[in-house]
Amino acid sequence: MRIAVIGAGAMGSIYGGRLSLKNDVYLIDTNPAVIEAVNTGGLVLEENGQDNTYSPKALTSAAGLEPVDLVILFVKALYSKAALSGNRNIIGPDTYLMTLQNGSGHEDILSEFATTERIIIGTTEDNGAVLSPGHIRHGGKGNTNIGMLVPDTQGFLPKVKECFDACGFNVKIHSNIQQLIWNKLFVNVALSAVTGILKCEIGYVYENENAFALTKSLLHEAVTVAHALGLEADEAAITDEIIGVCTNSPHGVTSICADLRAGRKTEVATISGSVVRAAEKCGVDVPCHKFIVNIIHAMENMK
Amino acid sequence: MRIAVIGAGAMGSIYGGRLSLKNDVYLIDTNPAVIEAVNTGGLVLEENGQDNTYSPKALTSAAGLEPVDLVILFVKALYSKAALSGNRNIIGPDTYLMTLQNGSGHEDILSEFATTERIIIGTTEDNGAVLSPGHIRHGGKGNTNIGMLVPDTQGFLPKVKECFDACGFNVKIHSNIQQLIWNKLFVNVALSAVTGILKCEIGYVYENENAFALTKSLLHEAVTVAHALGLEADEAAITDEIIGVCTNSPHGVTSICADLRAGRKTEVATISGSVVRAAEKCGVDVPCHKFIVNIIHAMENMK
Repeated sequence: MRIAVIGAGAMGSIYGGRLSLKNDVYLIDTNPAVIEAVNTGGLVLEENGQDNTYSPKALTSAAGLEPVDLVILFVKALYSKAALSGNRNIIGPDTYLMTLQNGSGHEDILSEFATTERIIIGTTEDNGAVLSPGHIRHGGKGNTNIGMLVPDTQGFLPKVKECFDACGFNVKIHSNIQQLIWNKLFVNVALSAVTGILKCEIGYVYENENAFALTKSLLHEAVTVAHALGLEADEAAITDEIIGVCTNSPHGVTSICADLRAGRKTEVATISGSVVRAAEKCGVDVPCHKFIVNIIHAMENMK
Repeated sequence: MRIAVIGAGAMGSIYGGRLSLKNDVYLIDTNPAVIEAVNTGGLVLEENGQDNTYSPKALTSAAGLEPVDLVILFVKALYSKAALSGNRNIIGPDTYLMTLQNGSGHEDILSEFATTERIIIGTTEDNGAVLSPGHIRHGGKGNTNIGMLVPDTQGFLPKVKECFDACGFNVKIHSNIQQLIWNKLFVNVALSAVTGILKCEIGYVYENENAFALTKSLLHEAVTVAHALGLEADEAAITDEIIGVCTNSPHGVTSICADLRAGRKTEVATISGSVVRAAEKCGVDVPCHKFIVNIIHAMENMK
């Protein structure tokens, strides 16, 4: 399969690297330091304590390339639109677009670049960390959950599974992928923005009753939206899951918190913001989500 | 008149000092440094650029005193209950309690210590700043607006006006004092907590569209509560007033912001929190106010 991975952060590098074992893979990133490192010394993934070198073709842009079979988007979600616009030439009428990005609602942007029947959405349970340009630790491994917005009439998802699994992934195809995406989203929206505005570690959210009241308000709104979307959501069970995350990883720092601490823009628009947009579509009021998205954006713009 | 002023911050000192010109005034504060300074060198108010010395009796507690005619409460609102409890011996059956504190709903605490017909609530348009213990700048002067929760059948408010005006204040008696209190509260709830969570100056709130969206959400909720209480509130006119405050005093720092920066507890419970309590009484939902009160409390408890 001819595959383009856009975004050579930790996850893009892991997928781009391993998929290059048996496919024609282009790894595209606007950061020249990363591209030069990969083209010079290969893409090095630390897997089970051992460094393995992979050789995707690394490029700062897709300029001059023919359309590919599959584009996997792994940029930070706030750059999704720019990344697809800038590499539009590799998206042909038969090209599938895949997102495994954090948050939900990424299909709204992908659908500007491909028809609905060629959009694949999902989640990844793998994780990783950038050690240096071109050197990534592949941490925990899990399922790659994928699905489509409409029935997969072309039978493309089984081909994706075969292709990915042959390179060491574990793909699961879901007929109701939005349920999987929202299952992951609940904990994310209930914790990430709260730790962002408080600039605190995850443990504080459960330790402080006022902080946990914020989390409970946000979860309640997200569960209400999920129910309106026809999804399942057990508020009490998710609350227990959140408490588990807070108590098991008290020193954890969310990406929104890390971004704000570093003065960067955050992904709040595709995490908490995706609940606001979903709520608008199904006529549910989510005042706390609207409020917290505005707080995070107001913080992003501070000197 | 025998008057006790509890709380010798800027405003307590201004009222305690000037009222001591023609009344028997006890200025009570738990901070021994302030009490010692006043008892040693008098209470010095800088007024119109000139230092004037006043001589209220300064005490760290009212222990041993007989009940007074009037208690004026000028502590930070979160210490109101403790201050009244600790000086309960000066509150007799004929003693009036007065609050001119920031925020609204102080009558809920005062009514634990006096009957409704002896509670005076209001606002002060005077302002001041502590220069050093016992030395206070009396800044802008304005009206002292007072009123009662029930009709003033004993005719006490005119006596207060006569007494205060003789010492240089300008008292206005209002039959609908809650309207005055809420008029001041609207700008306060729409700006103070927002500058607190963003730890920013007032000007940023209007400069940043996301921050101003927070302010507009809070104002809208407060206006809805005011209408439910039977008060007047013109949302567009108040919005203009808020914009005026932001643009005229861009470097202004609210008390909530100053307290959070200094690691102190804030008065959010009697500013934004008073809207939450009023909303509960009249059955209005104020999710943004509940949310922001929890944020501020969560911030207060951080190391």
